[in-house]
Amino acid sequence: EVVPTRERYAVRRLPFCRPGDRDLAFFERLMPGRVVTGEEEVKPYNVDWLKSVRGCSQLVLKPQTTAEVSEVLRYCHERNLAVTPQGGNTGLVGGSVPVFDEIILSTALMNRIISFDSVSGILVCQAGCVLERLNEYLEEQGFIMPLDLGAKGSCHIGGNVATNAGGLRLLRYGSLRGTVLGLEVVLADGSALDCLASLRKDNTGYDLKQLFIGSEGTLGVITAVSILCPQKPKAVNLAFLGCESFAKVLETFTTCRVMLGEILSACEFMDEKCMELVERHLKLSRPVTGTPFYVLIETSGSNSTHDEEKLNNFLEQATASGLVIDGTVATDDKKIKASHLRERITEALTHEGYVYKYDISLPVGKLYDLVTDMRARLGHRAKNVVGYGHLGDGNLHLNITAESYSHSLLEAIEPFVYEWTARCSGSVSAEHGLGFKKKQFMEYSKPSGAVALMRRFKAMLDPRGILNPYKMLPESS
Amino acid sequence: EVVPTRERYAVRRLPFCRPGDRDLAFFERLMPGRVVTGEEEVKPYNVDWLKSVRGCSQLVLKPQTTAEVSEVLRYCHERNLAVTPQGGNTGLVGGSVPVFDEIILSTALMNRIISFDSVSGILVCQAGCVLERLNEYLEEQGFIMPLDLGAKGSCHIGGNVATNAGGLRLLRYGSLRGTVLGLEVVLADGSALDCLASLRKDNTGYDLKQLFIGSEGTLGVITAVSILCPQKPKAVNLAFLGCESFAKVLETFTTCRVMLGEILSACEFMDEKCMELVERHLKLSRPVTGTPFYVLIETSGSNSTHDEEKLNNFLEQATASGLVIDGTVATDDKKIKASHLRERITEALTHEGYVYKYDISLPVGKLYDLVTDMRARLGHRAKNVVGYGHLGDGNLHLNITAESYSHSLLEAIEPFVYEWTARCSGSVSAEHGLGFKKKQFMEYSKPSGAVALMRRFKAMLDPRGILNPYKMLPESS
Repeated sequence: EVVPTRERYAVRRLPFCRPGDRDLAFFERLMPGRVVTGEEEVKPYNVDWLKSVRGCSQLVLKPQTTAEVSEVLRYCHERNLAVTPQGGNTGLVGGSVPVFDEIILSTALMNRIISFDSVSGILVCQAGCVLERLNEYLEEQGFIMPLDLGAKGSCHIGGNVATNAGGLRLLRYGSLRGTVLGLEVVLADGSALDCLASLRKDNTGYDLKQLFIGSEGTLGVITAVSILCPQKPKAVNLAFLGCESFAKVLETFTTCRVMLGEILSACEFMDEKCMELVERHLKLSRPVTGTPFYVLIETSGSNSTHDEEKLNNFLEQATASGLVIDGTVATDDKKIKASHLRERITEALTHEGYVYKYDISLPVGKLYDLVTDMRARLGHRAKNVVGYGHLGDGNLHLNITAESYSHSLLEAIEPFVYEWTARCSGSVSAEHGLGFKKKQFMEYSKPSGAVALMRRFKAMLDPRGILNPYKMLPESS
Repeated sequence: EVVPTRERYAVRRLPFCRPGDRDLAFFERLMPGRVVTGEEEVKPYNVDWLKSVRGCSQLVLKPQTTAEVSEVLRYCHERNLAVTPQGGNTGLVGGSVPVFDEIILSTALMNRIISFDSVSGILVCQAGCVLERLNEYLEEQGFIMPLDLGAKGSCHIGGNVATNAGGLRLLRYGSLRGTVLGLEVVLADGSALDCLASLRKDNTGYDLKQLFIGSEGTLGVITAVSILCPQKPKAVNLAFLGCESFAKVLETFTTCRVMLGEILSACEFMDEKCMELVERHLKLSRPVTGTPFYVLIETSGSNSTHDEEKLNNFLEQATASGLVIDGTVATDDKKIKASHLRERITEALTHEGYVYKYDISLPVGKLYDLVTDMRARLGHRAKNVVGYGHLGDGNLHLNITAESYSHSLLEAIEPFVYEWTARCSGSVSAEHGLGFKKKQFMEYSKPSGAVALMRRFKAMLDPRGILNPYKMLPESS
């Protein structure tokens, strides 16, 4: 049983109104049959995917249209009712579930594809479309989504944009700040902001949509997205390599970046412990074993002969120079399995008990030092201290597992991990966001002037603070 | 002689203070020897590159440090003095010169490279670094700037970021919204905002820097930039092709996008008239002649053998299927000349007399229809109506020339050109920005709710409106 957030964390409910029968009646009239009440029905919306935080909302709304979202927010704004927007509820920092009794505004029924232009590659769709469904739809037409992540089977594109999700393809196709061309957003007062342009270039005024990308539902509710999709590569290759030290991992990365150049589409590393856990809990076997580090390299290109030649040249050099001890290129039927080795680490970790998760940006050379230092610091107090992540982006996923949650273990980890990161001018949240669980640590990565300005934006766009309260912005001390 | 802006356009001076002797003395103390006064010395800072607008400032300040910029703005804010930030003064919409007597804040002496990390490819530099100098510096270390434009020899990186410059490499390396990793900005009240992170991923709070990218100096003065630079490609190839219709141009584009895939780094088109003017005024000869349209294709890749094979396969197919009438691949010593054919069109046009410039985003299929319609509409009233631009980005540069400025010709062009664009849901400024000359047309591309929200941001960040007044935001009617 997940401990309710309000019991585990010292957090005080803000003086929002509590939804009552009159409110329920309003919502029922607005969207008959799409208002969820009843403890059991609402429960899955109250608990995050990691089962680490739990709210006590009694009301889930499932709008189908932007107009309905507008009506809901206009009403909540007037009535001073707090709202937590929720997509696929796959977030890892407790941003998508209520803390108290906030009304949950789910995008689950906003899953319509509005248009796709196969000349420009621009997709326009509602916020609740599931990432994997969009990718399948695009693949039929020779395109793919510019992002890919482990949660693709359930996460919503609106949630991806609201959290500025990174994932596996960022190295190649860049961040959502470049690929998202337009957004439709409903503001806290219910007014709809139409920035749903479908143009690669548009320099007519401030780029308002950027403010909502990565704002974690605190400034507005994203209702539709316009996104630039790359062509589906004709050839995709995966190589799984074993390295005997992290220094060799780094050299492997710089070498493949030069030799694979424009076809390099992912460069991921995992330590031995990660792979052991994936094997143990998910029964996935590794093509290469017995080294302390592994590197997964993906190439995507337009000419399979050229791509294979580049990849083989790289592998020959990497092996000949001792960067790589053992390596294998996945054949077509093994590709999905090989990529699961990387994508399903998060899932494997949940089988270990309680997981303390850290998602850190660091200068790539220091990426694994934090894991080593943390392991030395915690000793036997932790069950496992593992590291994996996106080499190309300087993004480490540091995970510490224990049989169950322990406050003293948390205190051994934090603020040490954040102080360590701040000393390297790193980011305490590379791609997961701050949500509820990380919000107090923003100032390790942002100067106080920036935090103060963020508060002013929040106050301007959501003066009553009804949108995803208790999230992202640190509580004032 | 350029007609002063205040005489040509109906614009009223806002009630800012006029800089006086006391102010001059303050600035002289703050930055001795870097305060420019005197009509002749100040003149080049008052007139834009196109010689289309002219202010009457009597004061140019040349800070060297962020602290000096802070001091200047703190003082101007307190004294209610208006300020026009200026980089290389290469803008095309009159955004970088004063309209009245605004103090010109030049970044010319802020040209220090702060750091470059050759593992991550991240460059940090002051705002006044010239784009071409940065590119030369990077090339020595095996990297390049992610943007390239005709004005590279004079434009400043701070100005590029402030105007969200697009240019020739956008197709391959994406927009500045993805490649700019950090900014240092001085706000209107003189406070410095440090968002100068050097991390590929950082999801700790709202991405404040995005608001300043493309804000044309109206929200803050960019003093330093952190930017992600791609590796220098080992092989660059240029092909210059002739097509007999715009339909063939489009088909050439979609074919090369598929066949060149990840190595396609630019796909530009020019009509016959553009090439004729470049030939006549700049004495540059074309490798291919006699077709109504030309396409310039650039590839950049990591393996010259592979790249040439891809390019040759494409050229064979394009010729065999009749998409391309004539074509040539530039040999090494001809590459620069071939790229000048495209880059120097703007310059060639200035030799024609007065140029009415339009920078439009449209669905790529309709890109040239606007040129054809405009040519038919204007008939003999225009000397030339030419079109060229970035096919891959759906970005048309429509240019209309006449012996001299004529208000009646302007009225034949506008608002027709903007209404035409709005009907196609295009953008009335793809990459040039709005500056002074286009600000009244923002609402052809942005809904009134968005414009209203922009005004709120401006009012919040620059309550006295001292930063680049009369620019970007439309005057309220």
